[in-house]
Amino acid sequence: MGREIYSTLKPLFHPRSVAIVGASRDPKKWGFHLLLNVVKGGYAGRIYPVNPREKEILGFQAYPTVAQIPQAVDLVVLVVPPSDILRVLSECGRNGALIGVVITAGFGEISREGKKLEGEMVRLARSLGIRLVGPNCQGIVSTNPSRLYAHMPPQFPEPGPLGVVSQSGNLATSIIELANSMYLGFSRIISSGNEADLQTIDFLEYLAEDPQTEVILSYLEGIKDGERFIRAVKKVSSQKPLLMMKAGQTEAGVKAAFSHTGALTGSDDLFEGLCQQMGIIRPETLEEMVDIAAALLTQPLPKGRRVGILTLGGGWGVLAADYCAKAGLTLPQLSPGMVKTLDKVLPPWWNRINPIDMVAGYRKGDLIQSLEVFLSSRQFDGVLMLGLGWRATRGGFLQVSALTPEDKMEAVGHDWIEEEQKIFAEVQELGRRYAKPILFASDMVHLVPGYAESIRRRRVAAYPSLHRAVRAYLGLVERHEILKRMQETVGSRVPWK
Amino acid sequence: MGREIYSTLKPLFHPRSVAIVGASRDPKKWGFHLLLNVVKGGYAGRIYPVNPREKEILGFQAYPTVAQIPQAVDLVVLVVPPSDILRVLSECGRNGALIGVVITAGFGEISREGKKLEGEMVRLARSLGIRLVGPNCQGIVSTNPSRLYAHMPPQFPEPGPLGVVSQSGNLATSIIELANSMYLGFSRIISSGNEADLQTIDFLEYLAEDPQTEVILSYLEGIKDGERFIRAVKKVSSQKPLLMMKAGQTEAGVKAAFSHTGALTGSDDLFEGLCQQMGIIRPETLEEMVDIAAALLTQPLPKGRRVGILTLGGGWGVLAADYCAKAGLTLPQLSPGMVKTLDKVLPPWWNRINPIDMVAGYRKGDLIQSLEVFLSSRQFDGVLMLGLGWRATRGGFLQVSALTPEDKMEAVGHDWIEEEQKIFAEVQELGRRYAKPILFASDMVHLVPGYAESIRRRRVAAYPSLHRAVRAYLGLVERHEILKRMQETVGSRVPWK
Repeated sequence: MGREIYSTLKPLFHPRSVAIVGASRDPKKWGFHLLLNVVKGGYAGRIYPVNPREKEILGFQAYPTVAQIPQAVDLVVLVVPPSDILRVLSECGRNGALIGVVITAGFGEISREGKKLEGEMVRLARSLGIRLVGPNCQGIVSTNPSRLYAHMPPQFPEPGPLGVVSQSGNLATSIIELANSMYLGFSRIISSGNEADLQTIDFLEYLAEDPQTEVILSYLEGIKDGERFIRAVKKVSSQKPLLMMKAGQTEAGVKAAFSHTGALTGSDDLFEGLCQQMGIIRPETLEEMVDIAAALLTQPLPKGRRVGILTLGGGWGVLAADYCAKAGLTLPQLSPGMVKTLDKVLPPWWNRINPIDMVAGYRKGDLIQSLEVFLSSRQFDGVLMLGLGWRATRGGFLQVSALTPEDKMEAVGHDWIEEEQKIFAEVQELGRRYAKPILFASDMVHLVPGYAESIRRRRVAAYPSLHRAVRAYLGLVERHEILKRMQETVGSRVPWK
Repeated sequence: MGREIYSTLKPLFHPRSVAIVGASRDPKKWGFHLLLNVVKGGYAGRIYPVNPREKEILGFQAYPTVAQIPQAVDLVVLVVPPSDILRVLSECGRNGALIGVVITAGFGEISREGKKLEGEMVRLARSLGIRLVGPNCQGIVSTNPSRLYAHMPPQFPEPGPLGVVSQSGNLATSIIELANSMYLGFSRIISSGNEADLQTIDFLEYLAEDPQTEVILSYLEGIKDGERFIRAVKKVSSQKPLLMMKAGQTEAGVKAAFSHTGALTGSDDLFEGLCQQMGIIRPETLEEMVDIAAALLTQPLPKGRRVGILTLGGGWGVLAADYCAKAGLTLPQLSPGMVKTLDKVLPPWWNRINPIDMVAGYRKGDLIQSLEVFLSSRQFDGVLMLGLGWRATRGGFLQVSALTPEDKMEAVGHDWIEEEQKIFAEVQELGRRYAKPILFASDMVHLVPGYAESIRRRRVAAYPSLHRAVRAYLGLVERHEILKRMQETVGSRVPWK
C-alpha cells in the first residue's frame, strides 16, 4: 500500500512541470497569488499559466487551455469557479496531466448540489486517470528536490524534516509560523480540504515512505474509511512519529467542522481510544504539536518517565516540578551516592533534592558536573535544564553598559558570554554521549551564541517556557511508550531509533 | 489595614535616596549589579554605594558604613554575607534608614542556623524601626514617580499598570519577559523571597491602594497567617483583579518549594477552594497569567459565557470552538434574525453557524457588519476574532514582490494593508461602543499597522494562538463572576468597572 501511493503521489511532490489554471494578472485574484508563490518560491521546473484571455502572466507564456500546453503536465493547480471544473478537468485529461490540486471552494462543504458536483468531478478524474487533492484546499508545498510553494499564503518555509497533512489550510499556515519560530523546516505540506479523492491517509502513507520526512504532523476533521485508516495509521506510526490533532472534541467543534469541510468528525472518545491503539501522539494545541516535534527531531527517546531537573533559579524548579508531576512524569530523589558526589562539587548550602537548584551564581564546572551526575545515573531517563541564557544576557548587558574602563565590565561580559556558550556546547556533547534527552526551558536561551546554529544542526530543543518544555518531554516519553507497545505486541523490530 | 501598609511601604516604592550596602567595583559581584541597575535604570534620587574599601564606585562617592552617610536614607539594599547582616542592620538603625531589601541568601531556606539568624535579623530590625523585604530575594522595581530598578537581572521594563509580588525572583523575571512581548509595563515588582518580615499580603495590600497599579499578579510559595491572608486578599480582589499562582500543587512541587524559600505550601486542594472564596483568578502558567492580565487591562468584562466567533479561516474556527467548549464557554447558535441580516451581507455560501467563517476572501464591510451582528445581539457577551493580519501580510508581500509595474501589485498591496488597518481600528471602535470584549487570535495580527500603538493605548488584546486567546477570555469571565459573587454576598458597590 505505502509503495503504491508513493509512486501515485510522486508527480505531486516531484513534478517536472506545473500548470496554474485560472492564473490571473489581477493581484486581487487567488489565481494570481498561486502563480506568484510558485514563481517567487523558486520552483525550478516548467511553469504554465492557463488563462484564455492572456498571452503572458508574470513573464510566463499563458495558454488558453491545459489541452493546448505542448507537453504533458505533471501537476495541475485549479483555481477556477466550480461551474468550470468539469470542463477544465476534461482538458487536463486531453493534456495527459497526472494529478490535480483543486483550490476552488464551493463543493460538498456548502450544499447538496456542491456535494453532487464534487462526486461528478471525482468520477471524471478517475476516468481520466487523474488523482485529485482538495477541493476547498489551500494547496501544497514540496521543498525537495524542487522548491515548490503551490499554496495560497505568502509563506516559504525552509526545507526540513517535518511533513504536514492538514484538512485546514489556515492551521497549516499556523503550523508553518510556529515551526519557523523553532527554526524547523518542512519536507511536504498538504492542505487536503474536502478530500473528495485523495485522503489524509494517502498522504500519511506517502510521508511514511518519504526519505525527506522524519516527523509527521496532521490535523484531521473526519475519517471516511475507518478500517483502512486504523490499519494504515498503525503502520505509519511504526515507521515515523505521528502527531495528530482531530477537530470536534466537543459538540461546538463538531458543528464547526461540518460547516468547514463537510466532515463528520465522529465520536471523540472513540478516537481518543484509537489513538493509543494506532500509536498516535495527540497534542492539545498546534504549539504543543510543534514543540513535541522539535524534541523528537533533536533528542534521543528517554527510556522512562524519570526526570532530573537542573535549575538556575529556585522558582523555575518549583513550577517545573509541579508541571512534571501533573503530566505524569516522576522526579526521583537523589541517591546518597549522588548527594555525596555533588557535595564535592556544589557550595555547602546546595539544596540536596531534585530539582537541583544551582542558585543564581552558577559556574561552568558545577553545572556540567551536576548534569553528568543525572545523566550517568540509572535512576534518571532524561534532564530538564532551566534558565540557561541569563548569564549571556547579563554579559551582553555589561558589554553595552561599560561606564569606565577600569571597571572591566567589557572583559567580564565577554567572559560570561563565552562561558555560557561553552556550557551550551558541553551540554549538547554530554547529551549525545549518554544518549539521554536534555530539554532546555528559558526566557533567554536564544541569546546564547550558537543557539540558532545548534537548533538547525538538530542538537538542541529549547522552549521559551517551563510548561512547554515539560509537555515536549512528555511527547518524547509517549513516543518511547508507543514503540515499546508495538515491539511487545508485534514482536518485530521497529525502524525508528 | 490597607492605608497603614501604604504609608509603611512608601519609602520602598517612592524612596528619595537609596544605599547599596555591599556595592562593589567587581562586575562579578551582585553588589556591582545592583548598583549598576539602579544607575542605568535612571533612578533620580540620591544613590549611596556602601563599601569600606572603596572611595568611589561607578562615579558615586562610596561610604564605609551606612551610619556614615550624612543623610538619613529611605531605602537600603543589602548585598552582604549573612554573617555581616546584624552589624549592617545596626548601622542602618544609626543612620535612620526606613526600610531594607535583603538580597542576601543563606538564611531559613538552607539550615536551622540560618532560620535562627533570620529571626534575630527581624527582631533587630523591628527594634530599630526598620521594615525588611527578603531575605533571599531578587530586589524590587518601582517605575513611578522615580524609575527605580533595584533588582538583580538586567531588566528595565517600561512603566505600566501591572503590579507583581513573587516569592521567586526568577519567576518575576519570566513575567517581565512575557509582559514585554505583550507590550505591557509595570508599576511595582517585588521579589519577596523568604518573607521574614514583610509578606506577600503586605505587598498585595499596598498594590490594592497604589494608584499606579491596575492588575495584580502574584506567585506564592507559602502562607504564614492564613486567617489574615484570607481576609486581606478578599479585600484586595474586591478592589482590583488579582491573579495568583501557588507553588506546590504536587508533592514534587511542595518539596522543591521548601528547599527554595523554606515555605510550607500547605494543601493545594484547600488553596483551590479558598481561591474561589477569596476572588482569586488562578492561572496554570505564567503565560496565562500575563495573557489574562492583557485582556483585563484592555477589554470590558463580558456579562456571561456566551461567545461569538468570527473567523477568517475555517480550521481556526473549528479548533477555537473546541477550546471554548472545553473551557466552559458557550457558543450560542445564530438566531433566525441574525441569519437573515447576515444573508444580506455575506456571500450566498456563508456557513450560517457560530463560528461565522468569513472564508479567505473577507472584505471590510462584511467583516465589520458581521461583527456588529454579534455585538448588538443580547445572545452574545463577547467576540473572538481569528486570523486578522493575514491580509496586511499578503499586502506587504505584494509590495516587496512587484515584478512588473503593470501588475499593480504595489497599489493592491498598499490598499490591502490600509484596509486591514481600517478594519483593526473599526473593530476597536465597535468594541468600545458596545462595551463588549473582543479578543484577537492570529499568527499575524502584529503585522497590522498600528498594532503596537493600539496595545499601548490599551485598546486591543491580541494573542499569537487560539488557545491563549480562549484562556484569556475565560479570565475575563472569571473576573466578572468574582465581582458578581461579591456583589451578591456583600451587597456593596464594587469599585472595579
